[in-house]
Amino acid sequence: TLAAPAIAQEMPEVRWRVASAFPKSLDTIYGGAETLSKYLSEATGGKFQLQVFAAGEIVPGLQAQDAASDGTVEACHTVAYYSWGKDPTFALGAAVPFALSARAHNAWQYYGGGIDLFNEFLATYNLFGLPGGNTGAQMGGWFRKEIKTVADLQGLKIRVGGFAGAVLSRLGAVPQQIAGGDIYPALEKGTIDASEWVGPYDDQKLGFFKVAPYYYYPGWWEGGPTVHFLFNKAKYEELPDNYKALLHTAARAADADMLQKYDHLNPIALKELVAAGAQLRPFSQEVLDACYKASNEVYAELEGSNPAFKKIWDSIKEARANWYLYNQTAEYTFDTFMMIQQRNKTL
Amino acid sequence: TLAAPAIAQEMPEVRWRVASAFPKSLDTIYGGAETLSKYLSEATGGKFQLQVFAAGEIVPGLQAQDAASDGTVEACHTVAYYSWGKDPTFALGAAVPFALSARAHNAWQYYGGGIDLFNEFLATYNLFGLPGGNTGAQMGGWFRKEIKTVADLQGLKIRVGGFAGAVLSRLGAVPQQIAGGDIYPALEKGTIDASEWVGPYDDQKLGFFKVAPYYYYPGWWEGGPTVHFLFNKAKYEELPDNYKALLHTAARAADADMLQKYDHLNPIALKELVAAGAQLRPFSQEVLDACYKASNEVYAELEGSNPAFKKIWDSIKEARANWYLYNQTAEYTFDTFMMIQQRNKTL
Repeated sequence: TLAAPAIAQEMPEVRWRVASAFPKSLDTIYGGAETLSKYLSEATGGKFQLQVFAAGEIVPGLQAQDAASDGTVEACHTVAYYSWGKDPTFALGAAVPFALSARAHNAWQYYGGGIDLFNEFLATYNLFGLPGGNTGAQMGGWFRKEIKTVADLQGLKIRVGGFAGAVLSRLGAVPQQIAGGDIYPALEKGTIDASEWVGPYDDQKLGFFKVAPYYYYPGWWEGGPTVHFLFNKAKYEELPDNYKALLHTAARAADADMLQKYDHLNPIALKELVAAGAQLRPFSQEVLDACYKASNEVYAELEGSNPAFKKIWDSIKEARANWYLYNQTAEYTFDTFMMIQQRNKTL
Repeated sequence: TLAAPAIAQEMPEVRWRVASAFPKSLDTIYGGAETLSKYLSEATGGKFQLQVFAAGEIVPGLQAQDAASDGTVEACHTVAYYSWGKDPTFALGAAVPFALSARAHNAWQYYGGGIDLFNEFLATYNLFGLPGGNTGAQMGGWFRKEIKTVADLQGLKIRVGGFAGAVLSRLGAVPQQIAGGDIYPALEKGTIDASEWVGPYDDQKLGFFKVAPYYYYPGWWEGGPTVHFLFNKAKYEELPDNYKALLHTAARAADADMLQKYDHLNPIALKELVAAGAQLRPFSQEVLDACYKASNEVYAELEGSNPAFKKIWDSIKEARANWYLYNQTAEYTFDTFMMIQQRNKTL
């Protein structure tokens, strides 16, 4: 038969290694790379396979991106804001303070030019990126005591990194860098006063509510953070067209899948956390206003000093202004009415 | 070579016809089937192809589902609530009044058992369904005069169908069934007083703001309606495993894609509509409360008379109660803060 060799050529055996930035215990976010692997393998009868390595198996989680960049592995699954220290522009692909919710970030990425803009930047690191999951708006974290005013932030030792740390330090807080496993004892002993993590489902596993019961929201530094699949650019470009197309489709499906999973699990976990004693608290308007102003000071500095940052941030700001004009109509009013019923116990 | 025949067998030529319930002019929603077609074709080097037919090309839009059910076509792309008259249970797969937002509906579908529950019902119609798009919360539609109280609904001739029509008629309104192309002249002449359609992007094309300037929100009868790919069950089951897996992945990507596209286009269209004279109005709390009560009366009747409806509706209600407890924390508070900035012109 004449057709067979052409087909075989289109379906080569491809085996990629993916370094995840996450431990297996974070099954939702670590699971995103396994989901992509499953989609690719099943659609190709096992010919296009990803082997996923948890944080630390090949390289430490925070070096997953470097490993994809230098070709140690073909791909990684990470949150681009981990590379904030290298260049704050990385954070724009994931989440920055007071920017976009998950739906708004996705609209900007897929239709507002965001994916292309971010890839223009990633190319300078030999990377090609596709959105690979979203957690939804994160919680603000666990606090040993209540925070009512900006004065309460003075000297507050809070485990938080990157952009949020830079903002909070302007308000007198003292950001701490502590690995996930060390947070609980530090909160218990009072070595730190507060810690952000993710959201109800992930937070519940670590039991912070027992030692820091005030559970604040929102995590204004990540209104809808995107997790990324970052591919070694040369390896990505070597793929045949049908695999490349499948990779885009499968990544898109895996991206959506993670948020759907979080959106199912988080509400259940939140109910359980509240039943177990977690005290829900919104950040006060005063605290949010001060954090917003401090964030805008950081943005102004970066706009002046970092052209790559400015280019992408300008695009996000335009999308943000349009989104929040629109969102206040049908979406917000529908949700508001439903939450009134929820509070009235008529839902 | 021994491998070639096996590969050829795994990649057979498959050509399916898809009857869309939508005209090509609704490029976002009609486009969902073209998106699925593109994903499948590109990932298989053209071996798995869908040919999409707009409403009326093979069968009228509202008969697309029947055509997939009876095997006239292999698949259709439609909104399941179009079959509300056949059995109101169909509507639960798409949207019913005061139920779930897009994110909550997706969480329920993909992780809360929704897809399986709906397919148990669809199987009795020889169909297998997968989510195939979402519009986000729709707008309440265009009104020639303001609606402030329930009394203003008395005798109101509003173009709206299905479940919402049944609810509004309990409050004295007179639901009308009018094809899309006939709405504008009916509003212009005053033959009808109001009409719902979709959201800003689709509504803008029809120019309703010129003849019925009050643009109400939210469309409480569809907080996040899912559009479905409905496959003839026997045809779906004939697919080889790799094509079946690819179909699920590609449908999942196409499902996410439609909402992302709407979420980019709707905000831009809303700005333009407002600039052109559309008058944004929220439904009053009194009107929403009355509609909510009337909806619950319809639900109570259906729970008593339709076991298939009750089974799925019970599952949705549980997901809804969990979601709106969770949503009021990080997501809602983040959005609220951003909209305050938007109104203060500090965004």
